[in-house]
Amino acid sequence: MSLKFTNAKRIEGLDKNVWIEFTKLAADPSVVNLGQGFPDISPPIYVKEELSKIAAIDSLNQYTRGFGHPSLVKALSYLYEKLYQKQIDSNKEVLVTVGAYGSLFNAIQALVDEGDEVIIIVPFYDCYEPMVRMAGATPVFIPLRSKPVDGKKWSSSDWTLDPQELESKFNSKTKAIILNTPHNPLGKVYNKEELQVIADLCIKYDTLCISDEVYEWLVYSGNKHLKIATLPGMWERTITIGSAGKTFSVTGWKLGWSIGPTHLIKHLQTVQQNTIYTCATPLQEALAQAFWIAMKRMDDPECYFNSLPKELEVKRDRIAHLLESVGLKPIVPDGGYFIIADVSSLDPDLSDMKNNEPYDYKFVKWMTKHKKLSAIPVSAFCNSETKSQFEKFVRFCFIKKDSTLDAAEEIIKAWSVQKS
Amino acid sequence: MSLKFTNAKRIEGLDKNVWIEFTKLAADPSVVNLGQGFPDISPPIYVKEELSKIAAIDSLNQYTRGFGHPSLVKALSYLYEKLYQKQIDSNKEVLVTVGAYGSLFNAIQALVDEGDEVIIIVPFYDCYEPMVRMAGATPVFIPLRSKPVDGKKWSSSDWTLDPQELESKFNSKTKAIILNTPHNPLGKVYNKEELQVIADLCIKYDTLCISDEVYEWLVYSGNKHLKIATLPGMWERTITIGSAGKTFSVTGWKLGWSIGPTHLIKHLQTVQQNTIYTCATPLQEALAQAFWIAMKRMDDPECYFNSLPKELEVKRDRIAHLLESVGLKPIVPDGGYFIIADVSSLDPDLSDMKNNEPYDYKFVKWMTKHKKLSAIPVSAFCNSETKSQFEKFVRFCFIKKDSTLDAAEEIIKAWSVQKS
Ligand SMILES: Cc1ncc(COP(=O)(O)O)c(C=O)c1O
Ligand SMILES: Cc1ncc(COP(=O)(O)O)c(C=O)c1O
Repeated sequence: MSLKFTNAKRIEGLDKNVWIEFTKLAADPSVVNLGQGFPDISPPIYVKEELSKIAAIDSLNQYTRGFGHPSLVKALSYLYEKLYQKQIDSNKEVLVTVGAYGSLFNAIQALVDEGDEVIIIVPFYDCYEPMVRMAGATPVFIPLRSKPVDGKKWSSSDWTLDPQELESKFNSKTKAIILNTPHNPLGKVYNKEELQVIADLCIKYDTLCISDEVYEWLVYSGNKHLKIATLPGMWERTITIGSAGKTFSVTGWKLGWSIGPTHLIKHLQTVQQNTIYTCATPLQEALAQAFWIAMKRMDDPECYFNSLPKELEVKRDRIAHLLESVGLKPIVPDGGYFIIADVSSLDPDLSDMKNNEPYDYKFVKWMTKHKKLSAIPVSAFCNSETKSQFEKFVRFCFIKKDSTLDAAEEIIKAWSVQKS
Repeated sequence: MSLKFTNAKRIEGLDKNVWIEFTKLAADPSVVNLGQGFPDISPPIYVKEELSKIAAIDSLNQYTRGFGHPSLVKALSYLYEKLYQKQIDSNKEVLVTVGAYGSLFNAIQALVDEGDEVIIIVPFYDCYEPMVRMAGATPVFIPLRSKPVDGKKWSSSDWTLDPQELESKFNSKTKAIILNTPHNPLGKVYNKEELQVIADLCIKYDTLCISDEVYEWLVYSGNKHLKIATLPGMWERTITIGSAGKTFSVTGWKLGWSIGPTHLIKHLQTVQQNTIYTCATPLQEALAQAFWIAMKRMDDPECYFNSLPKELEVKRDRIAHLLESVGLKPIVPDGGYFIIADVSSLDPDLSDMKNNEPYDYKFVKWMTKHKKLSAIPVSAFCNSETKSQFEKFVRFCFIKKDSTLDAAEEIIKAWSVQKS
């Protein structure tokens, strides 16, 4: 075959993708899907209605401003001005992207050069590593570690970074650290002290912070989401990323945004104009309308920003209880809509599974095939050196209808009875 | 300011963008906008209706398959199988992207390495050059040249490539040539012989062809759109790119696609999964439905693929006649929805415009400000060395309502009366 058919070096070895592999498996309609992170509950009715209405308006089916539809960047700056307690320039400090994914890509391509280092906290949303590699940079990994837990429940807050170990990862080549709070897959919500440690190091070593906060509204009782960009000295060096898919339970809209200082956002804008140029207009307008509706009743329990976490907390407690009841030890999340659990005690016979894969890959494939329940292996969120630390864990998504959780419960209970 | 705030080298100097600059100017509602290429006519009613209906369906607001929503890749492969007269694997030979822009970016990032050369035909859709530069490659330019025209109308088909000159641009470093037919901004529709010259060189020098065919349905009487991928030996080395925005007059949907052999598309898929992962589900489903509706009456004059070019041909003739009637010499396009004309005979007093810009930039800015008519300077479609060859030309977009064209006519006629 022609040599000219080969891929560019920048994507060498980046063709594996956990979502593609496990989404295909879960596509069988008889499978109860607690895998990929998307809701099967309905998004708010007004979100869908806005899109229906807007689809009929001719001009809203045509190109809009490349860096963000005017009504959407206005809504976003209005919202975030309140959260940041500072003015935000909707044209210069906000960029609308193709999902949070697009924001991550834009930020990394815009700011990270070949030879740079980027610190990634393990486990991590899987695209961080290939995106850093595609930019020709070196990912430097640091794991969250859990303090021992005896007797009491295991919580995502038990997983912490060691400050000395973290500092050892910084050096003059460090261009950025990628933070994710609330965290996927652990559900950890970083507290003020933890964020301050990271901020101090960013300032000391003069590095940027890319803060993926797509689950910002999804925090449970006793926790509060804090933005690292609001700590002193951090606004000027932080890109904060959000997602419409996660905010309004419409993952299929693939709209996200980056908020940050003009001197950084302008570079992300340059990437945008040379990659996709602009995002879909009808979705952006519908999203802007949805934000105005939600913002008008921001302090009301009915506001989706308040009602969704309440609804999800019940589901979290239900699935945590279910997993415990069959002898597993889940890590109860403080935020996000995933729960991970050590599944090794279920100990199925995996001898018919391919052997060159981590335990959790084999486990999930086996469970999907034989138990008709799907999940995501947590080692997919690890670099190759740390996979073994997490391969006994599996991630379940709980933003699901009660009937879906009922079906999952039935499967898990029957399985444990069978075993005992 | 911190050194860490600087942009990555790959985007150095790529921050200028003609759309952003001229869209801002034309945003004034009193301006008659024949600038950026988007329709102000209505898209087909069924296209809007499909989106309205689909917005109400919960599951179609969630993530779908990353390489293309199943029903859309099926519709695309069904359509293109007829046009290519060969089977097309909807999962492996089709990739859905964020507009044709996204397809161009994916193809270039996937296949073009640092140090490669990519041949670009001038004038060119403006993003080709920065996309090639962002990949670290060197764009190699060749201009279309016009044969002399006396007496008869000037046509886009008078603009041709010199085969010897073209061959001189190929060498062992040439990774690809980017072709655009029907052409923006000239409206040229390459004929079989012209495509064969390009194909022969691609095969002789073993290079890829990225064929941007977003205006494939928009060809006027006496012309036929041909796909270079259907010439012998070309399928295996060609990525053919299309756009929903241009096909169904919904530029705001930002959906496009790449069609090509598995051994190339798989690399584009790798880029997709590390940049945006997936495109918007409701738009993809609505587009799939629109394709099925159009395909069912493909041979019927009512089919949008047939009715839109008929409707546009009348508009093309009208604007060509208008430009001639005031003494300009338009280049009558055989395809696409743009017409370019040498405007230097209008000779306005540009002394109050910034001086460090090409003539056409100053002209369009002056015209937008003083005549309330906007267009796009053709030198925006040129590399810096060829700008002077095209800076007397301005591009007008004619996919506009009669009332918009009436308003433009009034402005142009009054202007020429004033002058004489
Ligand atoms: C932590 C995190 N970041 C980013 C994303 C991607 O979000 P989007 O769908 O908006 O691209 C996800 C999706 O699951 C996520 O969990
Ligand atoms: C030749 C050409 N290619 C690509 C595009 C971009 O198309 P899309 O809006 O689908 O990204 C355009 C838009 O004007 C174009 O004229």
